[in-house]
Amino acid sequence: MTTVDAGAAVRRGPGRPRDEEIDGQIIAATLALIDAEEEVTVSRVVERSGVSRAALYRRWPSLTMLIAAALDVGRTVPPTMDADGDLYAAVIGAVFGDPASVTASGYSEVRFRHRIRLVMGDRALQRAYWRSHVSRRRGPVEEALRRGLERGILRADLDVEACFDALAGVAYYQLVVRGARFDDPDSQARMKAALDVIWRGMLA
Amino acid sequence: MTTVDAGAAVRRGPGRPRDEEIDGQIIAATLALIDAEEEVTVSRVVERSGVSRAALYRRWPSLTMLIAAALDVGRTVPPTMDADGDLYAAVIGAVFGDPASVTASGYSEVRFRHRIRLVMGDRALQRAYWRSHVSRRRGPVEEALRRGLERGILRADLDVEACFDALAGVAYYQLVVRGARFDDPDSQARMKAALDVIWRGMLA
Repeated sequence: MTTVDAGAAVRRGPGRPRDEEIDGQIIAATLALIDAEEEVTVSRVVERSGVSRAALYRRWPSLTMLIAAALDVGRTVPPTMDADGDLYAAVIGAVFGDPASVTASGYSEVRFRHRIRLVMGDRALQRAYWRSHVSRRRGPVEEALRRGLERGILRADLDVEACFDALAGVAYYQLVVRGARFDDPDSQARMKAALDVIWRGMLA
Repeated sequence: MTTVDAGAAVRRGPGRPRDEEIDGQIIAATLALIDAEEEVTVSRVVERSGVSRAALYRRWPSLTMLIAAALDVGRTVPPTMDADGDLYAAVIGAVFGDPASVTASGYSEVRFRHRIRLVMGDRALQRAYWRSHVSRRRGPVEEALRRGLERGILRADLDVEACFDALAGVAYYQLVVRGARFDDPDSQARMKAALDVIWRGMLA
């Protein structure tokens, strides 16, 4: 891929599919560097992706945001939840029920560990990743919890954000502090017990 | 006096000042490498500390354990708690009441962030650090929670370890996921709200 091609593809309109292709090349090059545990620099991304420096800067004025976007590949914002049925099953299921949500879709535990290492070494990246990715993924569960307040299932005075921190904190503790694997049976049992305690504390 | 020095003093008999000095030199060299973000190798520790390779291996047959010990300098196992008075105040206070427990005693947030980066890059180190350090520090709070079960304050069927994970997970979430500073007022308020939810879920 030449620099000229890359520049041309930036134009709007019928060139759209090409834009996505260039985005994909840049992200793939960034991920390759992360997975190889090499430092991510603009020069290296340019070299590996074949995309021009100008095209890269046009898309990601900040290297920090590019790394944040790359780290998020394979993770999706979950869809709106059905919060009018069994709220417990919906919330607990969304947060932990499906280990595949962590281990499948290319978001491997290896990449999770990389992500934590990178953000702990760079608070600006951490805050950027938090704002643009993690906090967005919390949306559907927080919505469901608010619906639970309205339905009178959960305490009216709950701090929904704090509740999410508590629920998600249980999983992070397993992976970051204990060094347990997410699908380890002991870990799963402990998480279930901890989540049930938190849930009980949330009930009206 | 650091935890490591204290441990060394307990292990050995009367020739000790000298031993402690050597331990201290080795640990100091290891920490200097960690703080400089250099890879910790036996050769580098030998070079920086001036201690012989043989003396180093005698004390720490495993480099992993040496790094784990160094990472723990400035952190202490909290004393046994008074679990017969106000249990809520004792437990919540022990886990989060004193931000100084994280930020003082040389265990700075910078070193905390280093520790997480290192353990996320090396699961063997993570497990070693968990077993020899983190899990030991949980002891006094877990004891107090068990006493709470006996006193009938907390539910008899509680999984005490899972409860600790939930409580501590709230703090880790702030530092590792949100990238908040431990003494940030918003973070403190969220932690308080989350801990109260968990506590409520633990009550008999």
